[in-house]
Amino acid sequence: MDSPPASPAPVPEAIERARTFARPALEQSVGRLHPDLARVCGYYFGWCDAEGTPTHGRGSRSLQACMVMLAAEASGEDPHVALPGAVAVELLHNFTLLHDDIIDGDTIRRGRPAAWVTFGTGTSLLAADALWAAAFSALIEVPGTAGRATASALNTSMGVIINAVAGEAVFDRTPAAEVDVDAYLAICETKGGELLGTAATVGTLLAGGPAAQARSLREAARHAGAAWQATNDLENIWGNAALVGKPGFQDLRQRKHTLPVIAALQSGHPAARALRGLLEKEELDEADLTRAADLIEESGGRAFTEQIAQGRLARALGTLADMRLPDPAHRNLADLLDFTVTRRPRTPSGKK
Amino acid sequence: MDSPPASPAPVPEAIERARTFARPALEQSVGRLHPDLARVCGYYFGWCDAEGTPTHGRGSRSLQACMVMLAAEASGEDPHVALPGAVAVELLHNFTLLHDDIIDGDTIRRGRPAAWVTFGTGTSLLAADALWAAAFSALIEVPGTAGRATASALNTSMGVIINAVAGEAVFDRTPAAEVDVDAYLAICETKGGELLGTAATVGTLLAGGPAAQARSLREAARHAGAAWQATNDLENIWGNAALVGKPGFQDLRQRKHTLPVIAALQSGHPAARALRGLLEKEELDEADLTRAADLIEESGGRAFTEQIAQGRLARALGTLADMRLPDPAHRNLADLLDFTVTRRPRTPSGKK
Repeated sequence: MDSPPASPAPVPEAIERARTFARPALEQSVGRLHPDLARVCGYYFGWCDAEGTPTHGRGSRSLQACMVMLAAEASGEDPHVALPGAVAVELLHNFTLLHDDIIDGDTIRRGRPAAWVTFGTGTSLLAADALWAAAFSALIEVPGTAGRATASALNTSMGVIINAVAGEAVFDRTPAAEVDVDAYLAICETKGGELLGTAATVGTLLAGGPAAQARSLREAARHAGAAWQATNDLENIWGNAALVGKPGFQDLRQRKHTLPVIAALQSGHPAARALRGLLEKEELDEADLTRAADLIEESGGRAFTEQIAQGRLARALGTLADMRLPDPAHRNLADLLDFTVTRRPRTPSGKK
Repeated sequence: MDSPPASPAPVPEAIERARTFARPALEQSVGRLHPDLARVCGYYFGWCDAEGTPTHGRGSRSLQACMVMLAAEASGEDPHVALPGAVAVELLHNFTLLHDDIIDGDTIRRGRPAAWVTFGTGTSLLAADALWAAAFSALIEVPGTAGRATASALNTSMGVIINAVAGEAVFDRTPAAEVDVDAYLAICETKGGELLGTAATVGTLLAGGPAAQARSLREAARHAGAAWQATNDLENIWGNAALVGKPGFQDLRQRKHTLPVIAALQSGHPAARALRGLLEKEELDEADLTRAADLIEESGGRAFTEQIAQGRLARALGTLADMRLPDPAHRNLADLLDFTVTRRPRTPSGKK
C-alpha cells in the first residue's frame, strides 16, 4: 500500500510524523535480525539499497503506524504508549508485501525490483517470516492485558488476510463472468483494509480508548482499504505507474480478475465480448493491452470501479465524521484515510 | 524431522499415543483454514493425498506434540491441559518444514513430492503462514498467564530458528575449509532441537510444572536435536533414504556443507584433497557421489559425525537421567529422545 520511497511527493503532516515516530523502533527491531535478513527488510523499507548501503531516503510511508498513532491520540493518550503496536503493525504490513510479491510473481515493488528478484525467493520468504516473529515480540511483552489483546487481534487479522489471499487465487481461476462482485469486494476490503483496521484497534487498545472508537475506526479503515484496492486496480490500467509503484498493465498482463475487468465482462455491453476474446489470446502485446483498456472503459468497467472507489472513500470519511472526534484528531484521521486511497494530501479545504 | 507417513515402522507407545492425542485438535485447526490451504496442510500431515482424499494413514509422527504431552505428564498433570500447546508446536513444526522445502528447493518430503512441487510455491508458502497464525491462535486464548508465556516462548523460538536458517545459508556459501565446526553444530542444535526444546517448555508451563524441569528438558531436547541433525547428515549419504524421507545423496548433490563433508575437508587427510577436487565439478553423477561418500569416509568425516551423533544422544539421555523423574515419565521421555535421533523404538532393555 506504499509508493516508491524515492518519490518526493508531499504527504499529510500526520503521516510524516508517524514515519519519524516509528522509524527508530522499527530499525531496532530489524537490526536484531540476522544481517542477511535485516538487509532484505532494510531494502523493502526503503532504508538501504540491495547492498545494504543507506539510501538516506525517508523510507516507505508508514500508513499503518500512522493509524496506530492517531488511534492512540484520538483516545487522548500520548502516542508513545502505542509505539509497540505501531512497530508490530508496520512489520506485519511488510511481511504481507514480501510474501505477496512471491505469491503473485510481482517483480516490482515501490518502484524497485521486488525483494525476491533481488535476494532470491528463499531469503525473502525467510526475511518476511522474521518480520512476523519480530512483530509479535514487540507486542507480547507489553505489560497488562493490552499486550495479549493486541497480539491476539493482530494474529486473528493475519489469519483473515491469509484466507483472503487464498480466496483471491480462487477468483483468478474462476471465469470472470462467474465471479461474484460482492464476494470480490469483500476480499478487496480485507486485503486493503484489514490490517489498517486492526491498526486502529491496536492503537485504541494500547491507549485504553473506548471499544466503540476501535470499532468505528476499524470500519472506516476497511472502507478506505476497499477504496484503495479499487483505485489500485484503476491506476494499474489508466494511471500513473509511479503511484502504485508497479509497471502499467501488470494486472491485465497476468489476467488478474480486477474490479474493472470483472465489471466489464459482466456488463452485457457489446464491448465485453470483444474483451473476452482478446483476453483469451496466449500473449498480450502493448497494443492488445491498450485495446483491452479501451474495451473495459467502453463497457463501463472503469466508471463502475470509480464509483466503488469514491463511494467507499465517502463511507470511510462518513463513518469517521459520525464519531464526532475533536480536531486535530478528526482532521488527522481524515487526512490519513483520504491519503490511503488517493496517495495525495488533501488541500486545506479538504478539496483536491 | 518426520519419516514417511506410509511407513509401518513401529514407534514407542508414547509417540503413538501423542498422535492420537493431538490429531482431532490439529484437524480442527487445519479445518478452519481456507480449503485450498487446508488441503496443502492435510497432505503435509499425511492425512490426505494431493486431491484431498483421505489416505486413512496414521499421518505424520507427532514428536513435537509428544514432547508437550510428556512434559505435562512429567509435571504430574493430565496431558489435556497442554493440548493447545501440543497443537501449536505441531503446527509450527509443519510451518518450518513447508518453508524449508521452498528455501532449500527440496523436492521430496516424508517420501512424497514436497508441497511446493505439488501445489506451487505460492500456495505452499501461504499454507505455512496460515499454520503459524493457527498455532498462535491455539495458544493465545489459554486463560491465565500460561497462554501469554507459552506464546511468547514459541515466538522467541521461531525468531531463533529463522536466524539459524539464515545462518545455515551463510555456511553453504562459505568455503567448507573455513566453516567453524562448533558454529555449525550450534546451528544443527537450533534447527534440530530448538522447537522440541520449546515444546518441553510449553508443556511444563501449561501444566504449571517447575522451571528447572523446563530448563533440563529443553537442554536434553536440544542435544537430541543436534544428534538428529548429525544422524540425518549420515543417513543422507550412507543411510536408508526412507528413514529421512528424501532421496539419497541429496545434500551432496546440492553441495550442502553437512557435518561429514566439513569434517572430511578439514581433516588434513590426503583423501580430503581428492574430495575437494571432486566437489568442484559442475555436475555430479551417481559414480561421483559414491566416490565422494567413500572419500568422506576415508578422511574420517563419517566417524567424526557418528561420534557427534552418539555423544549428543548420550548427553540428551544423561541430562534426562539427572532429572531423576519417576517412571513412566522418565521411560517415555527417554523413548522419545532416543526415537527422535534413531527413528527406531528402543528394545525393552533400552538396547538396540
